[in-house]
Amino acid sequence: MGKIILGDQLLERSDVLIDLEDRGYQFGDGVYEVIRVYGGKLFTMKEHIDRLFQSAKKIKLDISMSPEQIQDLVESLLKENGVNFGSVYMQVTRGAAPRNHKFPLPASNTKAVFTAYTNEVPRPQSQLENGVEAITAEDIRWLRCDIKSLNLLPNVLAKQEAADSGCFEAILHRNGIVTEGSSSNAYIVKNNEVMTHPADNLILNGITRQVLATLCKDNSIPFVEKEFEVHDLLHADEVFITSTTSEVMPVIKLDGRAVGNGVPGEITRKLQSLFEAKINQETKVEI
Amino acid sequence: MGKIILGDQLLERSDVLIDLEDRGYQFGDGVYEVIRVYGGKLFTMKEHIDRLFQSAKKIKLDISMSPEQIQDLVESLLKENGVNFGSVYMQVTRGAAPRNHKFPLPASNTKAVFTAYTNEVPRPQSQLENGVEAITAEDIRWLRCDIKSLNLLPNVLAKQEAADSGCFEAILHRNGIVTEGSSSNAYIVKNNEVMTHPADNLILNGITRQVLATLCKDNSIPFVEKEFEVHDLLHADEVFITSTTSEVMPVIKLDGRAVGNGVPGEITRKLQSLFEAKINQETKVEI
Repeated sequence: MGKIILGDQLLERSDVLIDLEDRGYQFGDGVYEVIRVYGGKLFTMKEHIDRLFQSAKKIKLDISMSPEQIQDLVESLLKENGVNFGSVYMQVTRGAAPRNHKFPLPASNTKAVFTAYTNEVPRPQSQLENGVEAITAEDIRWLRCDIKSLNLLPNVLAKQEAADSGCFEAILHRNGIVTEGSSSNAYIVKNNEVMTHPADNLILNGITRQVLATLCKDNSIPFVEKEFEVHDLLHADEVFITSTTSEVMPVIKLDGRAVGNGVPGEITRKLQSLFEAKINQETKVEI
Repeated sequence: MGKIILGDQLLERSDVLIDLEDRGYQFGDGVYEVIRVYGGKLFTMKEHIDRLFQSAKKIKLDISMSPEQIQDLVESLLKENGVNFGSVYMQVTRGAAPRNHKFPLPASNTKAVFTAYTNEVPRPQSQLENGVEAITAEDIRWLRCDIKSLNLLPNVLAKQEAADSGCFEAILHRNGIVTEGSSSNAYIVKNNEVMTHPADNLILNGITRQVLATLCKDNSIPFVEKEFEVHDLLHADEVFITSTTSEVMPVIKLDGRAVGNGVPGEITRKLQSLFEAKINQETKVEI
């Protein structure tokens, strides 16, 4: 894991310890981001850092650093740790204060706690090639899934439910409408149209999702942001999910039944290739 | 704050530090309880510890200690810290492991992290006497509010919204139905009947709520567990909330408008007095 950022310092892992009364530990009162690293280069870094600030703003959390400071810190960390293919995880909490649901008063001088670290993680080549299996599960999360917060227990429980079924992901539905995966956005392809839940309060507007929307537009692939039902998911021509670490991941089985022909579909393949080209273009790294 | 429990050890505050990758810090993956202390005696301790285990079971978290061990630890802590009127806060998380939504594998030997500490907190005498003001707010929480989990961000935001209006609590409603407060259960009194939301997945079945239900039954006060609407709340004869630290707390204003006559109601007063008698009886302490 190498060095870790705590505040604006690069520290050894063993020197980074968290206060018991950090509001991240007692309330999940914080937000986070994960940035993918390809060949030592940060992909869509600015977009992730911007979203960190957007999430913080939505919960009225003052990060007490500028996006540029965070960018500099993350770049120093990456250089220091010499990550090749991996990820940067960063989070910020409202800081340590005597436990009280209310925000700490300004007079208490409670400071946001920023932490970041890196991991070496290979691209999931075999899964990207062969596709993965998923289950469907009820979406029991709160009504502000547009905020990338540390309140992830329902996501954890859904992901574990998927793992218990030997699956990679749980695709969630609320009142019969497919929202997204437990840690990914979800899409169907029907009649050559890509369809996904609108970016409202019920899903996280993934950075990979945003990149994909642009790629679709630039390549005349219909990208439709519209609610669809579980029935549509189960009877789609193709299904795929996207996330920072999963990229464009084909889903070939849902609840044990084949999606389409049971192999990654043509549009999904096309989007994978466009996404890889985008990574190459942005990072100048051959992946 | 005195000594703190970490695992099964009583430690100095400065020696209790949390791992960056504790799942409580990254996912809010844990559960908690608060127990009230009256004159050095723990009130409804067994009920709180039992519920800690129930919450843990619901998220498939193995606490790795028995209720009796936790009871012994909490009693040692209380004695060590010499708390008179105050509270014990305890929480347990799924432990520290490399970040992954899925539960750590058994082979990883990840251990649950139990922490507990005490605070000296006086009874809110003046508020119990005069009542408090509350706002109404939308309930945006997840659909497993029966679990006393560390995913408290929506509760934090609602409580802060109340504080911003100079109020003590936010009483939440989902699809027009009143559920509970951001950190309390909520009740109305209408025609001498006490009414509160059924103890299903949408509210936490408070220990104080359970004590109150028994007190009502034993004293022939109708205690009706039934859904009611915001309109019923705003037009009730009396409104009150309960929690471990707030006891039976009259709400005299809602969204700036007087509840009933704008003073604590007769039934609320009766319940306060029954609850105090219960505390006296259980703890043998004159409060």
